[in-house]
This record gives sequence, C-alpha cells and structure tokens, in this order.
Amino acid sequence: MISIVILGTGNLAKHLFDAFKAQKGLEIIQLYGRDQNALSYFNAQINTTTDLSQIKEADIYLVAISDDAISEVSEYVLGKKSLIVHTSGSIPINALPHHHRRGVFYPLQSFSANRKVDFREIPICIEAETVADYELLNALASAISDKVIQIDSEQRKALHLTAVFANNFTNHIYHLAQEICTENDVPFELLFPLINETAAKIQDLSPLDAQTGPARRNDRGTLKKHLAQLKHKKHKKVYTLMSKSIRKTYGKKL
Amino acid sequence: MISIVILGTGNLAKHLFDAFKAQKGLEIIQLYGRDQNALSYFNAQINTTTDLSQIKEADIYLVAISDDAISEVSEYVLGKKSLIVHTSGSIPINALPHHHRRGVFYPLQSFSANRKVDFREIPICIEAETVADYELLNALASAISDKVIQIDSEQRKALHLTAVFANNFTNHIYHLAQEICTENDVPFELLFPLINETAAKIQDLSPLDAQTGPARRNDRGTLKKHLAQLKHKKHKKVYTLMSKSIRKTYGKKL
Repeated sequence: MISIVILGTGNLAKHLFDAFKAQKGLEIIQLYGRDQNALSYFNAQINTTTDLSQIKEADIYLVAISDDAISEVSEYVLGKKSLIVHTSGSIPINALPHHHRRGVFYPLQSFSANRKVDFREIPICIEAETVADYELLNALASAISDKVIQIDSEQRKALHLTAVFANNFTNHIYHLAQEICTENDVPFELLFPLINETAAKIQDLSPLDAQTGPARRNDRGTLKKHLAQLKHKKHKKVYTLMSKSIRKTYGKKL
Repeated sequence: MISIVILGTGNLAKHLFDAFKAQKGLEIIQLYGRDQNALSYFNAQINTTTDLSQIKEADIYLVAISDDAISEVSEYVLGKKSLIVHTSGSIPINALPHHHRRGVFYPLQSFSANRKVDFREIPICIEAETVADYELLNALASAISDKVIQIDSEQRKALHLTAVFANNFTNHIYHLAQEICTENDVPFELLFPLINETAAKIQDLSPLDAQTGPARRNDRGTLKKHLAQLKHKKHKKVYTLMSKSIRKTYGKKL
C-alpha cells in the first residue's frame, strides 16, 4: 500500500485524486489546498487542510500546484522523511528542497475540468535520485498508467516545449480555421473528420512523410490565391510563415 | 440504381471506387485513366479504358483528377447527357464545360494510399445547378456518407483553405515537434495522447476556449526561456509568430 498526500486543488490534482482513489493499492491520506473553497470537491471524500503545518505523514507528497509556487510550498513540508515530488514539465527536480528525498511525476497530457481522460493511456514521466525512490514512483505511476517512462529534467524540459507545439500551437491553428469558417458561413464541424485523420495519420506515418498541400508541392499559384483569399493580417501572417517553413523543410527555395 | 463512370486513378479515385463498389444501389460502369499502369488496381474488377473517346454512357461522370486537368479532360466527355461532377475543393463548378449538366462532389478528407477511411464519417460537399441534379448527387453521396451537405463554390473555396490550416499546417507543427523530440532524445510517441486529446477537445469546446499555455497566459518568462531553448531558426520563427498570434487573439499587447 502506498500512502499519498496531494498538495493542490487544480485540474491535475482533481484528475490524479480520482485516478489514485480508484486503485486499491493506493491510499490518499490527505489533500492540502490554500483556499477553503477549492477544497469543496474533496471535503466529502477525504481529510483536507488549508494549513501546511497540519500535513500528515505519507509515503509520497505529490505537489500539483502552479510552477511558481512549487519551491515555496515544498519548503513548508518540513520534518518529513517522505518522498516529495512535483508534477511540472518545466521545473527541474532540484527546485525541490535539497534536504528532502525528491522526485518528479509528470503526466504528459492537457487536463480540463470537465473532460474525462483515460490515465492508462497517458505517459507518466518520472524522475528520482535513488533506485528505491524510482521504484516507489514507478509503482505509483504504474498503478494508474500503462505508459511510465524515466525522463530526466533536461529531457522533460524539451518535452514540455514540444507539448507547446503539439497542443498550444495546434489548438491555435484550429482556432484560425474556425475563424475563417465563420467568416465564410461554413460549419467548422465539417473539419472534424479531417482534424481527426491528421492526428491519427502521424501515428502510422512520420509527419515528414504525411505532409501534403500547396506548400509541400511548391504550388505557387495556389499559395498566391490562398493569400489573396484571406481577409485578416493575422491569418495571412500565419499562412505565409507556415508555408515558408514547409517549403524550407522540403528543400524548396524561398 | 445510379450508374457511374470514374475518371481518375489516384488516391481519391481508389477510395471512391471501393466505397461505391460496396453499395448495392450504385453501379460503376467504367473507369478511365490516362496511364495503363495506373489502371492495374481496377482492371480485374471493372471495365477500364485509357481512351476518352471510348467512355460509356452513365448517369454520372465523376472526375477525380488533378485540379489543372479538370477542364481539359471534362471537355472530352462529349455528347453525353449525363451529369458531370468534379471532386476538387478549390475549383468552381463553372470550370466544367457549360454545355454539360454540372456538379461538384467534394469529400472533405485527406486520402492516403494505404490508410482506410470510414466514408460514413466524411462530409461530402455537393453542388449542382438544378434540383434534379442536386437530388441525384445527394442520392450518390448519401449512399456512402452520413454527412452530405450543400456547399456552393465560394464556400467550398473557403473550406478548402481552412483545410490547409487544419491539415497541412497542423501536420507541419507535428513535424517540428518531432524534430525537437529527436534532438533531445525524447520519443515522439509520448506526444500521441496529447495530440489526440488536443484534436478531441475542440469538438466539445471551441478552440478559443480550449487554448492554454504560456502565450495564452502572457507568461513572458516562460516564452523567453522556451525561445532560448530552441536551437534552430525555423523553430524559433514558428514559436515567435504562433505565440504572438495567440497573445493578440487574447488581447495582450505585443
């Protein structure tokens, strides 16, 4: 049995709480949140506290709070011989207090309040400083996910950056597509099967090989027509840069 | 029973051939291709020809060839009282010869040689010049898809442009993410669940509301760190422009 105290009340804390709670080999001892209101989701299910000095003993302290607050809050988890881990993609392991046993437990996914996720499919990137701590973290992660992987702080930082491309930038591209749909009285929903297929295809074929379209073919006529068709500077800028980047990738002169 | 002659031998022609063939209410009379070798996939299953003057009578001539060749090839389909339709997103209906009954049959999807697609899920955008022709095209499209929609040439042109964003640009973003993964010795596969969730989320929530990340939060510290972390000019350029475009979308000063 692994006992856990969760520090944090955000989307990740909620999703992890639900995932841990469903596992018989895991026991959530307590949940800490700064704000009493934010504890309402947990109150009926588990012991909660807003007072860092009241935190109970557990095998693992899991810190699921904003990046800025990790170091500070972790300092308050005093006098404990437990393993303390944070859940951030961009923060190195040594941001945690050096007098603690330290680790990182980073689930690579975008969590929203009202969307269920299948934790078994989510890669959990773990890092620890001793073999024993690695094994403990591995046991915790493997209890909820089938995709546990050892990733060091440098790799995790890179991974977090690629997630900005794969999630943030892709989502913004979807937003621009929706704007153009709306302006032209075309339902955005028509693009959903294409969006799904684009995401699915690169899981069989590399994106380098999957690339199609006028920029890939260096079809200047269509590129010019498309630019003329776009009404907004913002859309033109993204169209121009992405097309240039694609052409450059395939060795066409700009 | 609707009879069809398909003109073309590419990915779309193959996928449509397979989809039509599976429907009892549809009969493929013949398939035309310029190149004898390209007909090998169809030869054993259907009458084929490389000679436009040998094209048989049918209810519908479906032209699934490259955009540039649509007008020319269509001119050769002479003396027929049938409905002639092309399958292109970017070509207007009036690129077809005016002495014909004309229409457009545009399946909004990216087709690859070796990937099966579920046609029932693919939006088919149809356009015709008379009610009778619209009904005939609607019957053809509805035989293979549950998502048939009437779209005029202007709307279709816009839709085709949004598909460049949703497919071509998104795929290129995936490629850049893969490059950064490779450079940092991180498996690209770790991003697949995030890529899937990003695509799925905007089908519940608008991309405008789904946006997260440092640019959305106007977190200049992280934006600066990320830029310093990127090694290649190409990656930096895309990072900078996409971040600016996101910040602008959410009303942050640049």
